[in-house]
Amino acid sequence: MAKANESGQNTAARPLTDCPFPKRYPSQLIRDDVFFMTLAYNQAIDAWRRDEVPVGAVIEYGGDVIAAAHNQVESVGDPTAHAEMIALTQASNALGDWRLNGATLFVTKEPCPMCSGAALMARLARVVYAVPDAKMGCLGGVADLNGIASINHHLTITRGVLEEDCLELLQLFFRERRKTSTSAVDESQSID
Amino acid sequence: MAKANESGQNTAARPLTDCPFPKRYPSQLIRDDVFFMTLAYNQAIDAWRRDEVPVGAVIEYGGDVIAAAHNQVESVGDPTAHAEMIALTQASNALGDWRLNGATLFVTKEPCPMCSGAALMARLARVVYAVPDAKMGCLGGVADLNGIASINHHLTITRGVLEEDCLELLQLFFRERRKTSTSAVDESQSID
Repeated sequence: MAKANESGQNTAARPLTDCPFPKRYPSQLIRDDVFFMTLAYNQAIDAWRRDEVPVGAVIEYGGDVIAAAHNQVESVGDPTAHAEMIALTQASNALGDWRLNGATLFVTKEPCPMCSGAALMARLARVVYAVPDAKMGCLGGVADLNGIASINHHLTITRGVLEEDCLELLQLFFRERRKTSTSAVDESQSID
Repeated sequence: MAKANESGQNTAARPLTDCPFPKRYPSQLIRDDVFFMTLAYNQAIDAWRRDEVPVGAVIEYGGDVIAAAHNQVESVGDPTAHAEMIALTQASNALGDWRLNGATLFVTKEPCPMCSGAALMARLARVVYAVPDAKMGCLGGVADLNGIASINHHLTITRGVLEEDCLELLQLFFRERRKTSTSAVDESQSID
């Protein structure tokens, strides 16, 4: 349960590899799943620009964005600082309640075991993810925590929104990183 | 990913029901599993004293305690503020690395889906828990995230250390809470 680096400043002058993808500016008038996932995609670009595995998350409630975060594991040095976890904390602060009933999490990659569990514990209404993760994903990928009957909450899941774009971002990040990194690359969030 | 309430002060004058169990002071000379779990038990008592579900966690590394925390979901209003999550953040701060290789988590109840996943993501060597949780536990209880081959890390698990004492604490807390609480009791961490 980390304190996120709220300044969002990168300490390095520039990332190991530049992110070649630009941010997007969707119309505010159509607030559908693609709209919110596009904002999560922009967060993933922010992660890359800070040398983090490019995963972004946004939480929607009543048509508004109440949380937006990207992966910060390396910059804050905390294994719990995934995009989803930071967004869940932001959302509970915004709503003044740890129970996020009625809220939807948009995330660019299927949540890992920790974040899948956190989505359940937070009592989200819905999780929408872009890229399935057959290796680590626990909302239908390698396991389905949402399908366990005795867990006292269940989520509505939507898969594949903006999948190609978010996959391209992740794949190129790891491809570039394997070429340029002088140290071992953490592959736990790669989707190969 | 919450910021823990570091002051540890309770805003209420006294808990809804007093914790009838005293803390314990084991010898520092024998640093076995019972020693570290006893410290986790004391953390669980601290949780009760602050009207939180009594779950406590301690992380050991090289024979020393590098993290000690209790559940703070209600007091900080954050679904990610479980004892284990706060302890993982403390431990990564202590070691200066998000990879907690060689460290052992002691926790008074089998970790929930989120915390089981976090133990894997943090690359702990070992998790020792007191009370199995057949309803929510994901390290052998209702599911076994540690048994998924494609997840890139695996834990050594020890179950049942100080089980009776930690179970008694949880059971009495929920029994008393159901009698006295004017609002709905969150049962997601009960073990009935």
